[in-house]
Amino acid sequence: MKLKIKDMNIATGGPIIVILNQDDAKVLDFHVGDRIGIQHNNKKTVAILNFAESEKAVPRGRIGCYEVVLDKLHAKNNSLVTISLEEKPKSISYIKKKLNNEKLSYNELYTIVDDIVKNRLSDIEMTYFVSACHLNAMQTEETINLTKAMINTGEVLKFKKGPIMDKHCVGGVAGNRTTMVIVPILAAAGVTMPKSSSRSITSPSGTADTMEVLAGVSFSVKEVRKIVNKVGACIVWGGAINLAPADDRIIRVEHPLSIDSNGQLLASILAKKASVSAGHVLVDIPLGKGAKIEHRKKALFLKNQFEVVGRSAGMNIKVIITDGTQPIGNGYGPLLEARDVLWVLRNDLKGPSDLRKKSVVMAGLLLEMAGKAKKGQGEKKALEILESGKAYKKMQEMIKAQGGKEILPENLKLAKYSFGVYSNESGKIIHIDNETISKIARDAGAPLDKAAGVYLYHHKNDKIMKGEILYTIYSNSTERLEFARGATKETKGIEAKH
Amino acid sequence: MKLKIKDMNIATGGPIIVILNQDDAKVLDFHVGDRIGIQHNNKKTVAILNFAESEKAVPRGRIGCYEVVLDKLHAKNNSLVTISLEEKPKSISYIKKKLNNEKLSYNELYTIVDDIVKNRLSDIEMTYFVSACHLNAMQTEETINLTKAMINTGEVLKFKKGPIMDKHCVGGVAGNRTTMVIVPILAAAGVTMPKSSSRSITSPSGTADTMEVLAGVSFSVKEVRKIVNKVGACIVWGGAINLAPADDRIIRVEHPLSIDSNGQLLASILAKKASVSAGHVLVDIPLGKGAKIEHRKKALFLKNQFEVVGRSAGMNIKVIITDGTQPIGNGYGPLLEARDVLWVLRNDLKGPSDLRKKSVVMAGLLLEMAGKAKKGQGEKKALEILESGKAYKKMQEMIKAQGGKEILPENLKLAKYSFGVYSNESGKIIHIDNETISKIARDAGAPLDKAAGVYLYHHKNDKIMKGEILYTIYSNSTERLEFARGATKETKGIEAKH
Repeated sequence: MKLKIKDMNIATGGPIIVILNQDDAKVLDFHVGDRIGIQHNNKKTVAILNFAESEKAVPRGRIGCYEVVLDKLHAKNNSLVTISLEEKPKSISYIKKKLNNEKLSYNELYTIVDDIVKNRLSDIEMTYFVSACHLNAMQTEETINLTKAMINTGEVLKFKKGPIMDKHCVGGVAGNRTTMVIVPILAAAGVTMPKSSSRSITSPSGTADTMEVLAGVSFSVKEVRKIVNKVGACIVWGGAINLAPADDRIIRVEHPLSIDSNGQLLASILAKKASVSAGHVLVDIPLGKGAKIEHRKKALFLKNQFEVVGRSAGMNIKVIITDGTQPIGNGYGPLLEARDVLWVLRNDLKGPSDLRKKSVVMAGLLLEMAGKAKKGQGEKKALEILESGKAYKKMQEMIKAQGGKEILPENLKLAKYSFGVYSNESGKIIHIDNETISKIARDAGAPLDKAAGVYLYHHKNDKIMKGEILYTIYSNSTERLEFARGATKETKGIEAKH
Repeated sequence: MKLKIKDMNIATGGPIIVILNQDDAKVLDFHVGDRIGIQHNNKKTVAILNFAESEKAVPRGRIGCYEVVLDKLHAKNNSLVTISLEEKPKSISYIKKKLNNEKLSYNELYTIVDDIVKNRLSDIEMTYFVSACHLNAMQTEETINLTKAMINTGEVLKFKKGPIMDKHCVGGVAGNRTTMVIVPILAAAGVTMPKSSSRSITSPSGTADTMEVLAGVSFSVKEVRKIVNKVGACIVWGGAINLAPADDRIIRVEHPLSIDSNGQLLASILAKKASVSAGHVLVDIPLGKGAKIEHRKKALFLKNQFEVVGRSAGMNIKVIITDGTQPIGNGYGPLLEARDVLWVLRNDLKGPSDLRKKSVVMAGLLLEMAGKAKKGQGEKKALEILESGKAYKKMQEMIKAQGGKEILPENLKLAKYSFGVYSNESGKIIHIDNETISKIARDAGAPLDKAAGVYLYHHKNDKIMKGEILYTIYSNSTERLEFARGATKETKGIEAKH
């Protein structure tokens, strides 16, 4: 059957779709979701069928195409194409298999991931895959195979010099910017650390957002390779380099219900580590009330999964369970966090001691894994590097390589407006709620307003007096500041005991 | 924030969507799937957010709207609207609850179904609901509540005269057109039978497709009420009257993976019966190799579910398990089936005896349920009505009321082309495969080509000789006929034993 193209003037990053008038589709006995082959001269591509209800959208005799299809076919508006009904991807039957609680093989998982990466599955079909993995929990062998499939459907970055180290934090703790202290320490010790980090999703800042206060973070794979080969490390945004690309597409259908299935999460994380050729990975699981993982049993299960799956993918994995009961550092929001990090790296007394301590412990473990320190000596060595100023110097090299320039923490420009939040009671602080502090910082405009956020003056077990300042909220917008101030009226996020 | 409307020139029947340029969405911290309030003068509506990647699709500062949104807002291209972030529907948290295998209450299920009917959920969100019900099988209480929710979110049709009867067949048997014989018998006995039927999905014909050979089947609720109040019965297409409308929307996301979850299917069927005020329902579960239900255990489970759920919804339900091992009647395809039906109603010897027998038994049971015959006497009474010609007369009244006119079965115009399929062997027929016969009839063009299909000359246990004709394939297209002929080379669908 021959049809004339209608250019829909739309570019989407998602599944590849074409649109037929529903009356044409009915005559052809085509259904929504069928795969349609479209041929134009000697070019052919396959797309997922959708219907238009009205003649206005797509008239009979025409086929609505998005930019990606036009490009593939070297076609334009009014080009004549031949269409045909094609088989649905095999991956659909594998997804159904998983829905019926059968185990998937490596080849089946590879086929699914490959089709996801190549935009061959519709949102509905991907959602069934995510549901199936969420509900019929993946067995360890499947998680291992999914990890390998994710690695093998993406690019793998190679570097000149080993060992190549990486770290990962499960998240949920505000201000937990250890990466920005650890990476310069490790790189100063001669270890390669090509760190890709995420932007914030629900927190006031992700490591990529915080690093962006000091330098660029969006680089191509080629640029990352150049930076790392030059200075030994980087801290860049993972979204720009697009390694293990299935992940972003899966997240898109997970977002509406905030689903994350253990197996899938684990596979995504480890595939990203493998795709930068990391040989050694340290994983931080913060545990406690208000953190992402609130129960020890779940933390231990996750620890074991990381170890088993990571090792199967050829990595040396160490997992630590850390205190996640309160925020780390004093600032929450990109700029306030970057200031804390620089103070720690400069050995300034204003640097938060909890951030310094945790970073040094973790850097020590990584130095031991890399063979740069004897067992039990890593922490001491990490502290030496930090105190010597070498880590600060390495950070400045990284900033320069990533297109930034040296700036002293004191010179970071705070937000125009601020508001102090004071205690209503005297007593000992027994809980600081990560979620509440994060929400207030976001209400103030973080992470989009880089300088917005919360600066906390106390930590757990501190004694406070009634009327004493708890924290300052910063924002460049008076409206946002007012919004955040309103939120503190419901709860300040800090609990004290008389 | 104020934006200018861009009319996307698209009407879709699905979820209500608006489109922002992704850079605008980023600044506003909006995500795909967020709910956006759109206000224009004193009109306001809420839609689901999607992104456009390019300025070409939706430029910054504009909001892309489909027709349904423009209508609700009384707005047009370039109208200025104010947008706001709205809370997501509560039903999303209930869907997540079900995904986590918790039981849903009536109120929670009602909220979900109501949001589905009102197009407030995205495809992804609905898919999670379908997955959750498929994977975490619904308990009987939930199925009862889902049924009630489906009834209460749609219209309920009332009729002047009771008792109101209905029937349902689980399907999977080619040619099983008992409805078209039963309804006229019942109506001739003074019973009200407002029958809504489906079109074919995977079979050569649905009852609505077959009835359409003789009369119109697409009527509004008002027209159906008029027809039934006049002649006591109808056989119309359920899709046009749109009772219990959640079903169609759910089917749309089930189709891509051919999912059907027991609980949901049951709820949909019974809600449709309740929505025509049916007080008595007879359910036919054909069982056997090649039918939809192949195992007795599953048939018995389904029987029990129909009885328990149907009674809870206030209906008198009777369920029979029938022979589903071979097609019923001789013709498969709309016209060939309509001809069989008319022959049976006219007591013509050419009427297939299996279709006649099954219809009379079922009509008898319905007469007993309706109190029109004593227990054990229904079949006799049904046969009397059929033999008296009253059922044929009633069918002609129905055809006329539905806009058709009397036509003798001999005068139905067969397809232009036909092809005979002959036996390669002599022996006794031990299996006639429903699926294969259906596929060949569809390959020939049924149900779109009304006259296309298969006419079978034998049934199970018949003795055949090598070279004897098995069936004739009909089609109005030589290409289609050739296609169907090709299919018979793989398998004829008939197995004989020497």
